[in-house]
Amino acid sequence: MAKLYFKYGAMGSSKTAQALITKYNYEENDMKVWLIKPSADTRDGAAILRSRIGLEATVEVIPPEVDIHARFLGSRVRRCDVIIVDECQFLTEAQIDQLRAIVDEQSIPVLCFGLRTDFLTRLFPGSRRLMELADVIEEIKTMCDCGAKATVNARISDGYIVTEGAQVVLGGNDSYIAMCHRCYVNGIREHKKIKLHGQN
Amino acid sequence: MAKLYFKYGAMGSSKTAQALITKYNYEENDMKVWLIKPSADTRDGAAILRSRIGLEATVEVIPPEVDIHARFLGSRVRRCDVIIVDECQFLTEAQIDQLRAIVDEQSIPVLCFGLRTDFLTRLFPGSRRLMELADVIEEIKTMCDCGAKATVNARISDGYIVTEGAQVVLGGNDSYIAMCHRCYVNGIREHKKIKLHGQN
Amino acid sequence: MAKLYFKYGAMGSSKTAQALITKYNYEENDMKVWLIKPSADTRDGAAILRSRIGLEATVEVIPPEVDIHARFLGSRVRRCDVIIVDECQFLTEAQIDQLRAIVDEQSIPVLCFGLRTDFLTRLFPGSRRLMELADVIEEIKTMCDCGAKATVNARISDGYIVTEGAQVVLGGNDSYIAMCHRCYVNGIREHKKIKLHGQN
Amino acid sequence: MAKLYFKYGAMGSSKTAQALITKYNYEENDMKVWLIKPSADTRDGAAILRSRIGLEATVEVIPPEVDIHARFLGSRVRRCDVIIVDECQFLTEAQIDQLRAIVDEQSIPVLCFGLRTDFLTRLFPGSRRLMELADVIEEIKTMCDCGAKATVNARISDGYIVTEGAQVVLGGNDSYIAMCHRCYVNGIREHKKIKLHGQN
Repeated sequence: MAKLYFKYGAMGSSKTAQALITKYNYEENDMKVWLIKPSADTRDGAAILRSRIGLEATVEVIPPEVDIHARFLGSRVRRCDVIIVDECQFLTEAQIDQLRAIVDEQSIPVLCFGLRTDFLTRLFPGSRRLMELADVIEEIKTMCDCGAKATVNARISDGYIVTEGAQVVLGGNDSYIAMCHRCYVNGIREHKKIKLHGQN
Repeated sequence: MAKLYFKYGAMGSSKTAQALITKYNYEENDMKVWLIKPSADTRDGAAILRSRIGLEATVEVIPPEVDIHARFLGSRVRRCDVIIVDECQFLTEAQIDQLRAIVDEQSIPVLCFGLRTDFLTRLFPGSRRLMELADVIEEIKTMCDCGAKATVNARISDGYIVTEGAQVVLGGNDSYIAMCHRCYVNGIREHKKIKLHGQN
Repeated sequence: MAKLYFKYGAMGSSKTAQALITKYNYEENDMKVWLIKPSADTRDGAAILRSRIGLEATVEVIPPEVDIHARFLGSRVRRCDVIIVDECQFLTEAQIDQLRAIVDEQSIPVLCFGLRTDFLTRLFPGSRRLMELADVIEEIKTMCDCGAKATVNARISDGYIVTEGAQVVLGGNDSYIAMCHRCYVNGIREHKKIKLHGQN
Repeated sequence: MAKLYFKYGAMGSSKTAQALITKYNYEENDMKVWLIKPSADTRDGAAILRSRIGLEATVEVIPPEVDIHARFLGSRVRRCDVIIVDECQFLTEAQIDQLRAIVDEQSIPVLCFGLRTDFLTRLFPGSRRLMELADVIEEIKTMCDCGAKATVNARISDGYIVTEGAQVVLGGNDSYIAMCHRCYVNGIREHKKIKLHGQN
C-alpha cells in the first residue's frame, strides 16, 4: 500500500542529498521518479536541485497555485512510479491534500523532504499539514554544536539569534543554524554571539 | 541529556497502557514518576487513569490555567525523576512550552502520550506544539479494518462519519474509530455505514 | 504484505506486557491471535503467560521438536490472523524458519518478542535467526541505572556479574539485570557489587 | 553518551553514500572523522571509497589482524571525534569488540555501515557481533522488484540464484541482487531466471 512520507530535518541535515539518493535508488530499480519542489514565487518550470555535498538533478518547480494532483494526471508525468518533493514545508495546505489524494487514489508513494519549523519554532503550512496527514513521520538527524540533537532552526543576523520577523524572507541575507532547544533558549536569554560553521 | 517525547497514536492504539507500562518500568528502577493529564474543565485534583486492557494508576489532573513548570518547582513533586503525560493533545500551547522548559532547565525527561489529530484530521493545540518542540516523535501504531495502518480518528454518529462540528464535544455521545486515510475518505464519499468494534 | 517482526529488549523491558497489549489490540479489532512460547523442555500444552505489571493470558507452549508451520496448518489454529511469540530467543533456528515460511506462504504476520543476547552478550539461537530473517527489527527500550540505554543482560550471582557458565541454566537461582555495555564492562573489571532492583 | 551504531542494509541500499553523507555532515560541524573499511586481504593503507551515485572519499583500509583500538590510540588518528566504518560486515569479531571499547572508554561515537547477511541469509562475523553489541540497530531500506522491502542478498550466477558456495568469493564474477524473502524462496523453488538491474 502506497504511503505519504514526511522526512523532516533541521537546516544542514542533508535533506536534499537524501532526496537525491532516494531518487537514484528508485531509478536504479527501473522506476520513474517525478522530482518536484515548491516555488517561492509564481515562476513555473525546471530548475536544478543541488545538495551541498555535490549531488544534483533537474527538478520541476511548482508554484503555489498549481494543483499537483491535476498536474500528475496530465499526460506528461502520469506514468511516474513515485513522487519526491524537496523543500516540502513551502507547499500549501491544499497541495499536501493533493499529494495525499495521489497516494490514496493512484497508489503512488510520495516522499516529502523538508524543514519541520521556522526560526520561531513554528510549523510551516506544508509541514503542519504533513504532520497531520503523513503515514510515516521520520527524522533526518543532525547535531547541535553541544553534541545534542539539533531540532531548532535559528535565524542569525549580525551574529545573534533573531526572535522577530516574517516566516520567510525573500532575498534576505540572514543565515540559519540548527541548534538544540536548550542552546537556542540560552542563546537568546544570554544574548550570545553565535559562530556559524564554515566562517572565520 | 533529557528529552521531550511525543508518542502519538490513533484511537485504540493503547496509548494509556503504554503510559502506564512506562511508569511501571521507571518505578521498578526506583525512579519517581509524576503522572499527569489535562483536565477538560477547571477541576483540579487526583483521578484514576484506566487503560482498556485493565491497567490503572492515580493521575494528577491539570486544568488549562495551571503553569506546569511552576507546579513542578513546588514542593510536592519537585523530586520526581520523570514526567509522564496522558491525553497530551488537550494541554495548552503554553503548557507544552512549560514542559519544554522543565526538560531544558531541570534535565527531567517528559514523555507525552496522546492523539495526533482530531476528527477532521487537524492537530490539537497540544499535539501541534509537541510536533514543533518534541525531541523525539514516535508513533504508537494501530490498524484500520482494511489492514493498513490507521492514522485518522473518525467521529461516528448514527453509524456515519461526521465531517462538521466542534473539535472537542464535552459530554457528547459520539464514538470514534481509527481508520486509514483512504478508508476515511471513501467512507465519507460513499456515505458508508461504519461498523464499530465490539458492537452488534 | 505480512511481515516477520523481531521486537527485542533487555531483561525488564516489559516485552511480555507488550506482547499481551499487542494481542489485546488485535482482538479488539475482531482478529484471532495465536499466542505461543517455546518450552524449555519437551512438555507441550497450555500455560499462563504473565507480565510483571499484572497482565496475563493463556499461551500455547511449543517444545523444540515441534514444526510450528505444520502445527499452524493443523485444523486447530489455522484460522488465526496473527501469531505472537513470547520468549522467542528460545525457539530453534528451524522454528524461526518455519515462522518465516508462514509469513511468506500464508501472509500471516508474526510478531516475536524476546531477548537479544545472553549473559555473555551472545545471540541465542532464536534471536540470531531472527536477526537474519526478520523484516522489521525493533527495540523495546529500558534503562541502565546510570541513565543510559540498557543493552546487556548481566547474570548476577552473590551480587557479582557472572562471566562463565551455560547459556541457559534450568532451575538456576541466578538473577539478571539489564545494564549498558560500559557499566557491564566496568562492573566486571572493578568486581563491583551489583544492587538488584526491588531488593534491600 | 557515545554510541555504537549498526546501520545495515541490503545490496544497493546506498550504504556507502549514507556513510559519506554522514562524514560530510560531521565535517561541516568542524568535527574530525576517521573513515575506515576492512581489507579482504592483508594490504594496509589508503584507498578511495566510492558510492554508485558518485560520492567518494579517502578511506583507511584495515586488515583483519589490526587492533583498531590500539591504532585509534596511536598518534595519527587519536584526535578524531567520530569513527565511520563502511563494509563493517567484514570486520572480525575482535575488531567489533575493539570498536565497542573505543565507544565505552573514549566516548567516541562509532557508526558502522554494512550488510546484514550473506547470500544464504547468514550473518557475517562482523554483522553478527554488531547485532549483539550495537546500541542502535537501524535499517537502510531498499526495495525488491515486487515492491516489498528487500532483506535478502541473493547471489546470481548465469541468471539463477546460487544456494551453495563460500560466504565471500574473492575475485568472483557473481552478481548480487537485493530481494524480499518471499521472492528469494520462490526464485529458488521455481528456478526463475533473475533479471539484474542495469543490464539488457
